[in-house]
Amino acid sequence: MSSTYGQMLKIAIFGQSHAPAIGVTMDGLPAGLPVDEAALGRFLARRAPGNGAFATKRKEPDVPELLCGIADGHTCGAPITAIIRNTNQHSKDYSELRDKPRPSHADYPAQVKYGGWQDVAGGGHFSGRLTAPLCIAGGICLQVLERLGITVRAHIASVGPVQDRPFDPMGADADTPEFAALADSTFPVLDAQAEQQMRDCIEAARLDADSVGGTVECIVAGLPAGVGEPMFDGLENRIASIVFGIPAVKGLEFGSGFACAGMRGSAHNDAYTMRNDRVETLTNRHGGILGGISTGMPVVFRAAFKPTPSIGQAQQTVSLSRQENAELTIVGRHDPCIVPRAVPVVEAAAAVAVVDALLCSGVSLQPDVK
Amino acid sequence: MSSTYGQMLKIAIFGQSHAPAIGVTMDGLPAGLPVDEAALGRFLARRAPGNGAFATKRKEPDVPELLCGIADGHTCGAPITAIIRNTNQHSKDYSELRDKPRPSHADYPAQVKYGGWQDVAGGGHFSGRLTAPLCIAGGICLQVLERLGITVRAHIASVGPVQDRPFDPMGADADTPEFAALADSTFPVLDAQAEQQMRDCIEAARLDADSVGGTVECIVAGLPAGVGEPMFDGLENRIASIVFGIPAVKGLEFGSGFACAGMRGSAHNDAYTMRNDRVETLTNRHGGILGGISTGMPVVFRAAFKPTPSIGQAQQTVSLSRQENAELTIVGRHDPCIVPRAVPVVEAAAAVAVVDALLCSGVSLQPDVK
Amino acid sequence: MSSTYGQMLKIAIFGQSHAPAIGVTMDGLPAGLPVDEAALGRFLARRAPGNGAFATKRKEPDVPELLCGIADGHTCGAPITAIIRNTNQHSKDYSELRDKPRPSHADYPAQVKYGGWQDVAGGGHFSGRLTAPLCIAGGICLQVLERLGITVRAHIASVGPVQDRPFDPMGADADTPEFAALADSTFPVLDAQAEQQMRDCIEAARLDADSVGGTVECIVAGLPAGVGEPMFDGLENRIASIVFGIPAVKGLEFGSGFACAGMRGSAHNDAYTMRNDRVETLTNRHGGILGGISTGMPVVFRAAFKPTPSIGQAQQTVSLSRQENAELTIVGRHDPCIVPRAVPVVEAAAAVAVVDALLCSGVSLQPDVK
Amino acid sequence: MSSTYGQMLKIAIFGQSHAPAIGVTMDGLPAGLPVDEAALGRFLARRAPGNGAFATKRKEPDVPELLCGIADGHTCGAPITAIIRNTNQHSKDYSELRDKPRPSHADYPAQVKYGGWQDVAGGGHFSGRLTAPLCIAGGICLQVLERLGITVRAHIASVGPVQDRPFDPMGADADTPEFAALADSTFPVLDAQAEQQMRDCIEAARLDADSVGGTVECIVAGLPAGVGEPMFDGLENRIASIVFGIPAVKGLEFGSGFACAGMRGSAHNDAYTMRNDRVETLTNRHGGILGGISTGMPVVFRAAFKPTPSIGQAQQTVSLSRQENAELTIVGRHDPCIVPRAVPVVEAAAAVAVVDALLCSGVSLQPDVK
Repeated sequence: MSSTYGQMLKIAIFGQSHAPAIGVTMDGLPAGLPVDEAALGRFLARRAPGNGAFATKRKEPDVPELLCGIADGHTCGAPITAIIRNTNQHSKDYSELRDKPRPSHADYPAQVKYGGWQDVAGGGHFSGRLTAPLCIAGGICLQVLERLGITVRAHIASVGPVQDRPFDPMGADADTPEFAALADSTFPVLDAQAEQQMRDCIEAARLDADSVGGTVECIVAGLPAGVGEPMFDGLENRIASIVFGIPAVKGLEFGSGFACAGMRGSAHNDAYTMRNDRVETLTNRHGGILGGISTGMPVVFRAAFKPTPSIGQAQQTVSLSRQENAELTIVGRHDPCIVPRAVPVVEAAAAVAVVDALLCSGVSLQPDVK
Repeated sequence: MSSTYGQMLKIAIFGQSHAPAIGVTMDGLPAGLPVDEAALGRFLARRAPGNGAFATKRKEPDVPELLCGIADGHTCGAPITAIIRNTNQHSKDYSELRDKPRPSHADYPAQVKYGGWQDVAGGGHFSGRLTAPLCIAGGICLQVLERLGITVRAHIASVGPVQDRPFDPMGADADTPEFAALADSTFPVLDAQAEQQMRDCIEAARLDADSVGGTVECIVAGLPAGVGEPMFDGLENRIASIVFGIPAVKGLEFGSGFACAGMRGSAHNDAYTMRNDRVETLTNRHGGILGGISTGMPVVFRAAFKPTPSIGQAQQTVSLSRQENAELTIVGRHDPCIVPRAVPVVEAAAAVAVVDALLCSGVSLQPDVK
Repeated sequence: MSSTYGQMLKIAIFGQSHAPAIGVTMDGLPAGLPVDEAALGRFLARRAPGNGAFATKRKEPDVPELLCGIADGHTCGAPITAIIRNTNQHSKDYSELRDKPRPSHADYPAQVKYGGWQDVAGGGHFSGRLTAPLCIAGGICLQVLERLGITVRAHIASVGPVQDRPFDPMGADADTPEFAALADSTFPVLDAQAEQQMRDCIEAARLDADSVGGTVECIVAGLPAGVGEPMFDGLENRIASIVFGIPAVKGLEFGSGFACAGMRGSAHNDAYTMRNDRVETLTNRHGGILGGISTGMPVVFRAAFKPTPSIGQAQQTVSLSRQENAELTIVGRHDPCIVPRAVPVVEAAAAVAVVDALLCSGVSLQPDVK
Repeated sequence: MSSTYGQMLKIAIFGQSHAPAIGVTMDGLPAGLPVDEAALGRFLARRAPGNGAFATKRKEPDVPELLCGIADGHTCGAPITAIIRNTNQHSKDYSELRDKPRPSHADYPAQVKYGGWQDVAGGGHFSGRLTAPLCIAGGICLQVLERLGITVRAHIASVGPVQDRPFDPMGADADTPEFAALADSTFPVLDAQAEQQMRDCIEAARLDADSVGGTVECIVAGLPAGVGEPMFDGLENRIASIVFGIPAVKGLEFGSGFACAGMRGSAHNDAYTMRNDRVETLTNRHGGILGGISTGMPVVFRAAFKPTPSIGQAQQTVSLSRQENAELTIVGRHDPCIVPRAVPVVEAAAAVAVVDALLCSGVSLQPDVK
């Protein structure tokens, strides 16, 4: 098992849903970077359970405790570790899961891999709750990037069949109030009308004891050209490596993404032009990355999230002890749609990947002078 | 720059398109695994340039020389290195590229990253030619997997708007002659009618001095349950990490992929069932992976390839030396569609990722007894 | 900064001496391995401050809290994280250190590296206190190894000029009561007379407001042949990589060590012989490792510890703010000799290295059956 | 098996003694660093077999072929690969070795690890010949360091009982002609009288069909303060990790090394002082490294090399096929003392470690401007 990511910035995520705590260790941030704990708390609140009508009923404060690595409000060069206590477990809810794996959850492959020793309560280490420590690491990285003029912002691009307006891939909407409002929203959408339809779609699923999937689109604006490496350490590889670590992600595309497969080169190529003494492209179908390296245009990607597999309807499964077919009805709390809460998680993942890539490219993160 | 992949099996790819040689080092295969050089040669031939009417005009033998790591037809435990000589370079074709970056190639970000020191001839280290050493490593891994009963097979899923019949995600078509024929084809498609339409589509692009994109679908059948790790070392992360290292890939999806985002959980979940005393799922929308770990069902994924950015039409770019807009017409050989040749590359990438994952999961690769 | 070690078993150590907590995350142990917390506590007690007359005056319970990764007394496959709260800090003792670096401590290079942002209190992340989390990781690994019949044992080989009897490199003394007693001792020495002389030597240093160095010898018995890799991942490299992470280690030697440099091959080579149907060597000057790989003979190594740089005498240093020479007298608690407490730390380091090497060699750690 | 080293600069060494070729891939050097191939050839010549009366009789040109990664005499940012052809193999000499392992060689543990599939000819991947590619990587790194004002220099510190004058740990002898002459010597010693005694000692061993060990001392002068990381990525760990990858190394010590164990803190601590507006230490018992980080003083270390296990005398071993004791007399060429040829290898290893540490510390390697 490996819950460690990164090269120059290494993050190690730990914890199970119902263990005493979950948390993260970040090793590799330079000393002297300011960390605003209050802002970090606000960022984490966007992911926290219990936000809004549709989210899981489990309501926890989710206030991280910073154990080390920060002194005088700045990184001190030593690894940063933060933990979140699990205070609201209902372990009895999960007793049946060791025998009857929930469809499309990790229960069954985990049972095979760990020989039955895995912690099943609440999904154990596979729980979506483990995205909270990722958000701690990412939240700190977002602050680092913000000071460098690099903005990472995501929104709900779709819920079920309902689409939000996409980001302008050239970054032209970055100055709009809708764009700015995303950072404070627990249901971040550009188009207010789409938001209402999405909420309706989720509510309809909830009433059916069902769930619904969606997509998240993310933009990284302000990243200078020349960051990333060819082949296996390209920005795409690095972002993919961490984004596929978010539970429920089944697809990832950059720039024009899958649509590029249907296009011709003459229509897909992004012509270069000089603008304000700077080399830019006239369009951004390449999503800000060529050959694994940033071009200076916004990095744009979209991730597909499957519908939460936890639904209230009876489902067919097997009894592993009896080796026969069985029926399972999952009781207890669960989100009908995790996409709204996934938005800050995607931002966090992107921020960690970008900070690591900057460090690997030898870019200074401009620490404060002491 | 990092052209190294893997944890227990490390591959390091080296070379530039017009350097004396390109090649690969593989470190970590157990000793005693048979390597069939003739079969490896046949596999490489599928990727080689000059196959068929549409491929690049550059025709090279592309016979790898195995420098070390193999003795008596078996791995000997030491790193395997193989090189391919570059014998057919036309370096003069590329003189203009240092000043006028080709749209949607890596020229411009490479110029920024390497300060002009990058080898521009033939695309240098960014050239699609570097997929040849990946195919050497992957070709050896495919043989390892084959002996374990694990089959990796890919096909052209689409070219432009033309779709091939998809793989049966349950693996039911694995016994058909069309499936078997894929392994020997330089234009691997399941549906003969689709093949003709694809060829027409490519030829039309070629006549327009244009190019066209497409998708490749890959299936890994026979992989036992329990392989892979949660979070950042899941099978999806590992496959993504290497597949995004193939030039021109802009999207990747597993199982139902992006389609999952529009679905409800009740329609997307894959119910478990007992079949022949084995736990299986009734459907395979999860693509054989849950929580990063294999379920025993076939792993299915699709990668989107953008249209080759090298087109014969005049394009707008900039002159970096003059800092002004300029026009560029790329002369010389180029593929109007790289997708057919990308099929074995995707198989190779998947095979490397799966062998590494097996080794990380402690699965024996069953070497021969000496 | 990187406080992460290992390939298949990754440990990440975090914390500063006076931060809220220190701890460790271990990622990669298979599920189903029993962990005896009481035995772990006894092992940690051997390293704990306040043991015996000579140790630091700082007395802390040092009881680790296991936050995750263990369920039902066994590893559950998820990362294990344990923390130790820092409850007894005297931060005011250290105010002068930011300006006047203590000779032979890490203060000055840390000041340069971290630009003054490092946490100086108590030595920060450089404190010997950070060996406690290493002992948590190592203590768990020692239990894993014990169940495989692999014994890791160390003793004080010397303090100042006083030598203990060395281990029999063939492992012949492993059945003696003196050998067995080492595991329970906070002053682990084979020769009782040497122990008294060592204690006198330390007390004399203490009375002089001085400190004294020493060596620790460690043996790993029961390791099967064939573990480890050639070149950079040999057992020697792996052990060196972690042992030089213990503060104050300035030398490391395996088998005959530096003495080999004065010998001839005919006197140094270890002849093979059959004993009880097993290939063994008649002598063990190679220290159980050839070409980086275990031979089945005991692994034997010695580490040299410099005298604690914290002494009570006035020392010459510089004032970094004034850029002039200055005098410094370190006040507060410090060990006159850290070697006794270093013994379990060396065992812990060796155990982590060996478990990682076993996993990399594909050796099963025989988890319990559930 | 893992013959890969490094984090930001990764080197992968490949080849067996009698395979078609040996070589190395270096991934991670910035673009624009000049590489002087002629100077590299001269450096490699110092390690080459056939230098002087005592060296192995195998005489090979050992001219590396640079396959890629260098263009216009500079690094181009892509991985550098260089190979050396093996042209002078006598494979028949080694037929007996698969059955009768040579004492103190890696034959036996390799047989266990690789199940008999290892390439035994000439020692296979374990051969001292594999230090040639390490010297290619190191030779390039030495040139990089030289341009930064960082000098890496080693000498034979001892052969058998004969000692050379040690380096001045303060670097005071760096301006002497004896120091300068080391870089051009195939028998690098500071004291001419010691050299003659060493040569006599080696010749006496040769006449006795025996071998003799020795030590190599290495100094890295000009390294700025602040390079390296605490704990497991300290300069000592990094250097140890690579130096223990040189065949026959059994011990390594930094600064005062093992002698520190017998000292008191008051005698061992290095006082700070201001000299020419720079913080220095009055003595350098710490060997230029504190807490894993460089202090700005010269880094000084010594490695112990065991006597070559290949001796001409009859030795006791076992027959693995018959599982009984047997006698072995090694025929063919071998060095009576490898220490002279190990000197450039130690320099190479140190240079690779230091360049990697510099890159990890974010220090620019000042590439040429194009």
